[in-house]
Amino acid sequence: MSDAPIRGLWCATLTPLTADGGVDHARLAAHVRRLFTQGVEGVAPFGTTGEGQSFSVAERMAALDALLAAGVPAARMVVGTGCAALPDAVTLTRHALRAGIARSLVLPPFFFKELSDDAVYGYFAALIDAVADPRMRVYLYHIPQVSAVGISPDVVARLAADYPGVIAGVKDSAGDWNNTAKLLERAPQLSILVGHEPHLPRLLRAGGAGTICGVANVLPKAVAALLTPAVTPADEARVQAFIEILFRYPFLPAFKAIVADQLGDPGWRPVRVPQMPITEAQRSTLLDQLRKAGLLDTREVAQ
Amino acid sequence: MSDAPIRGLWCATLTPLTADGGVDHARLAAHVRRLFTQGVEGVAPFGTTGEGQSFSVAERMAALDALLAAGVPAARMVVGTGCAALPDAVTLTRHALRAGIARSLVLPPFFFKELSDDAVYGYFAALIDAVADPRMRVYLYHIPQVSAVGISPDVVARLAADYPGVIAGVKDSAGDWNNTAKLLERAPQLSILVGHEPHLPRLLRAGGAGTICGVANVLPKAVAALLTPAVTPADEARVQAFIEILFRYPFLPAFKAIVADQLGDPGWRPVRVPQMPITEAQRSTLLDQLRKAGLLDTREVAQ
Repeated sequence: MSDAPIRGLWCATLTPLTADGGVDHARLAAHVRRLFTQGVEGVAPFGTTGEGQSFSVAERMAALDALLAAGVPAARMVVGTGCAALPDAVTLTRHALRAGIARSLVLPPFFFKELSDDAVYGYFAALIDAVADPRMRVYLYHIPQVSAVGISPDVVARLAADYPGVIAGVKDSAGDWNNTAKLLERAPQLSILVGHEPHLPRLLRAGGAGTICGVANVLPKAVAALLTPAVTPADEARVQAFIEILFRYPFLPAFKAIVADQLGDPGWRPVRVPQMPITEAQRSTLLDQLRKAGLLDTREVAQ
Repeated sequence: MSDAPIRGLWCATLTPLTADGGVDHARLAAHVRRLFTQGVEGVAPFGTTGEGQSFSVAERMAALDALLAAGVPAARMVVGTGCAALPDAVTLTRHALRAGIARSLVLPPFFFKELSDDAVYGYFAALIDAVADPRMRVYLYHIPQVSAVGISPDVVARLAADYPGVIAGVKDSAGDWNNTAKLLERAPQLSILVGHEPHLPRLLRAGGAGTICGVANVLPKAVAALLTPAVTPADEARVQAFIEILFRYPFLPAFKAIVADQLGDPGWRPVRVPQMPITEAQRSTLLDQLRKAGLLDTREVAQ
């Protein structure tokens, strides 16, 4: 079971849907394999970009089994196993371990708000104690602008000290460099990963490990460029320009519309409630804007 | 299958835990039966006060089956079936219907934030369409200070118009009278229920239906007094004083500590993560303050 620390370019993969609204296992596996040909080192199914919280525990387990059956190596995955209810997170984490996947990406509990550090710590400690498998490698998932509950650097440091080896890293998707800097200072032994791609050059210079990000679904090579020592201001501007256009739209249906366009496969477009489709007018404007900015380079998806 | 509209005093029941952290079916059923002897007309398992989102779908279904097996009538329940993932809400709502319970109390999807009205509407429409059972009676659960996603009066009115009969009411737990007033105006055909007990006299005068509330777990008779035409300023002050003391503490472990004290049963105290126990010092001060204010009247729990 590979538990090598996550480094470099990992993708928080989108979750394509079948015509009847279920997870499209075949499209998902094909997407992941394509990403692997584009410089992506590993994937994180069922994060935020993967609409993870919109799928049941059973759907999430079945999709993971399907990815493995399709030949996606367990060593190249970190699985979103966080849930509001502790027993669901335990079930998903144990299932991943049984399937040979050591790494889990875990949200804090996100229904009750204004949780104390003790409460967030207590949830993760309870999860690790309940799973009770020394092979597990936990990546703490900090995305307070969506979950509304964060994981403070104090909690990260305390968990890392109390569960050495098991706490393996942090995906810091807050987009706040001050928070990332505190993580690098307080828990330098962990893989510190950012979700906000423009922070990557700075992160690597400061000793961080890499990224688990959404933009890699559509522009993997552009994100990979931010991870090289030879990164240029033009590389940075390219990713920044993409993000600025993307976030004029609801980002999830926008991401899927871009993949659909890159592949010529409209079946990629649907999102699950509570995400809503973008209108045809929005989709058309989005793609036009990206094309004009030179950001719909089909070389990104060439096989 | 009773689908009579909810009126009067309903309790958002607490969920007691066993020594190993599971749902304590025996204590839960005994609590509900005791509430029924105190003027409570029905109960809502697995709302916010019931820590509903902290339990798995399987735990929630098993507890419901246990309540029914213990003789709690299906006609006196509304079941919290909301979940972040639509398929989980469908599973729980169908399970309740199969068990003979028409009424479900449903949160909006609460992981993704800043949802549009269309997205919230779309989630409930998808739920009702997926359950596809004309017997279902949905109570929309608005508690934005916890869920961070609300259900606007516009969405309530639109759902009520598109699913007449199926949309049966709203539990408005925002504690904002302006919102409640809008609901009474926009959807007068629904059972408008408040969670904030001090609003009850005003609600009833304005044509509202009653309450599904947490304070009824510990002071059912005091809340019942607010529902009578003979309600006095002293009755209102009593409930207001209780709330002011309760919310100096984390309210969930505080509620459970009060029940434990009323029954002389410390087994009632535990909460599930991410809720944390209150300290012994907090518990002692809480109970002292309630006693001094005349708010720990054991007549409330006399059999």
